[in-house]
Amino acid sequence: MAETLSKQDLIVGVDLGGTKVLAGVFGSQLKLVANSKISTKPERGYAAVVERVARVVADTVDEADLSLKQVRAIGIGAPGAVNPDSGEVIFAPNLRWKDAPLKKDLEKILGIPVFVENDCNVCILGAHAVEYGGRPRHMAGIFLGTGIGGGLILNGELFGGFNRTAGEVGHMVIEVGGPKCSCGNRGCFEALASRTAIFRRIAEAVKGGGKTVLTEMLGPGEEYADLKSGDLRKAIRKGDKLVEKIIEDSAEYTGIAVANLINIFNPEVVVLGGGVLDALEDEMMAIIVATARDYAMAGTDKGIEIVASKLGDTAGITGAAVLARRGSKA
Amino acid sequence: MAETLSKQDLIVGVDLGGTKVLAGVFGSQLKLVANSKISTKPERGYAAVVERVARVVADTVDEADLSLKQVRAIGIGAPGAVNPDSGEVIFAPNLRWKDAPLKKDLEKILGIPVFVENDCNVCILGAHAVEYGGRPRHMAGIFLGTGIGGGLILNGELFGGFNRTAGEVGHMVIEVGGPKCSCGNRGCFEALASRTAIFRRIAEAVKGGGKTVLTEMLGPGEEYADLKSGDLRKAIRKGDKLVEKIIEDSAEYTGIAVANLINIFNPEVVVLGGGVLDALEDEMMAIIVATARDYAMAGTDKGIEIVASKLGDTAGITGAAVLARRGSKA
Repeated sequence: MAETLSKQDLIVGVDLGGTKVLAGVFGSQLKLVANSKISTKPERGYAAVVERVARVVADTVDEADLSLKQVRAIGIGAPGAVNPDSGEVIFAPNLRWKDAPLKKDLEKILGIPVFVENDCNVCILGAHAVEYGGRPRHMAGIFLGTGIGGGLILNGELFGGFNRTAGEVGHMVIEVGGPKCSCGNRGCFEALASRTAIFRRIAEAVKGGGKTVLTEMLGPGEEYADLKSGDLRKAIRKGDKLVEKIIEDSAEYTGIAVANLINIFNPEVVVLGGGVLDALEDEMMAIIVATARDYAMAGTDKGIEIVASKLGDTAGITGAAVLARRGSKA
Repeated sequence: MAETLSKQDLIVGVDLGGTKVLAGVFGSQLKLVANSKISTKPERGYAAVVERVARVVADTVDEADLSLKQVRAIGIGAPGAVNPDSGEVIFAPNLRWKDAPLKKDLEKILGIPVFVENDCNVCILGAHAVEYGGRPRHMAGIFLGTGIGGGLILNGELFGGFNRTAGEVGHMVIEVGGPKCSCGNRGCFEALASRTAIFRRIAEAVKGGGKTVLTEMLGPGEEYADLKSGDLRKAIRKGDKLVEKIIEDSAEYTGIAVANLINIFNPEVVVLGGGVLDALEDEMMAIIVATARDYAMAGTDKGIEIVASKLGDTAGITGAAVLARRGSKA
């Protein structure tokens, strides 16, 4: 493979999460050549995490029998607020970072240009460029995971708005007075439909006397929140009505959020992704689409696609590679 | 005045509503020279309304001792779905219109170029161009009246999205399972905070034993919904606690809607207008701003202005004039 790639033709995409760091090596046509992961260990502090990111990048390139000298640029999707111009992570509670000069420090270690963006912005960039060949002029993404994030493509470009924070769809209030959200408010979409919300509702239902097969899946000392999205799918396939109902509710809330985006912003494509949706696509997508079309104003959703991303857990590294390719061309 | 205006230097802006048609004659610097109104009488049918629009335009120009020959272009803000390219009103339930070729028919009568847009789009265009000199790159408008509409300016231009229906903020769901909306869904912002919603809530409160001074203002056979936004202001100033509480709720819902727009779209300016806000600005704005800042994610509202439009009931004719000026320059 190395022979077919000319010098500095490689792009590395990094998906930096609170738990793990994924890295992927891509050819110039964004074909994934190799990928690997490492745990983040944010408790060791900023410098240690930067060193781990550098290590997983180097290891992934080496694993594919390639050299760092062949890498033209590195893209990183980071959680929280990011300044893409300076490459600083302004605030990332998951990582315990504030004003972290990630681009500068990583470039110092690796000697390769680094581009940093918010993780959800990177995911919509990847879906837009790779799944849709960059065609839709206006596109929105909703990513259902531990939290809920989103991103907007507008006139073919990532849209940041005035403070570069556009796309925070998880904190759109859709149920005034609803459950408390991690942001401090009530009734946010994230507090109703994220993995955190789903497991909170399961725990509450069990407290209220409900029965679920998930209880048998718990290890010693484990809580429902320690389970994975895949466990929810397994439970539903075993006929678990409690989990099925809560996932259906979550899909309905998501459909309403999609309709809100269609009514306000009227994108050509709404793409859904994230760990919860990747695991439960078969259970959720039909409900999401039907609810969204029901709540969209008559005529506003005509011709609009509402689809699940096929990128799965490579969405982050793929989008980060798109970011790096664009940045290093400019 | 006529002497200071050169030939074809005038613009006419028309605000076409379900009840009345306002027309304003503007100089090229968008200074309002004269304005007047006529009732719409949609029950007389499409052709009769077009004739009435032509008449109010001609009468307003004549009233200012000017001639139709001096008019370069006419802009119209029309309710409902509009195709600005063809100048057709695709669907306007208030007017009972479907696929109405307004531009073509009015140009035939008056012999002057006509430009048509959705009424809320026209209002945000007016606020952006006249109140902000066209400066903000991204701006959102929310207009509280009988219903609730909105509009978006993106990169300095009116944003229509894929189906040209962007900005339907009134049908953003903010209270899942909430009160029924005219669109058929539940919990839309319009069903919670519009004038219709306010009077519905007042009527319900009175039915439940609540007392309001509005009851004394009702004429024989009149319902609360027949009252005006100004009557709500009068009631509050007389110390009416029932009306005060309902208007406070309405302002809170509006603040949440503003925060949703800030979280999703992050505009530089959010401008509020419409008959309800024009009448109740002193009672509502402080609550709207405080609630919006409370619900906006930390950091996302930094430097963002949340303001009431000063255009009042000239917002529609002013924005329509901006539309016509732009269209006739292009």
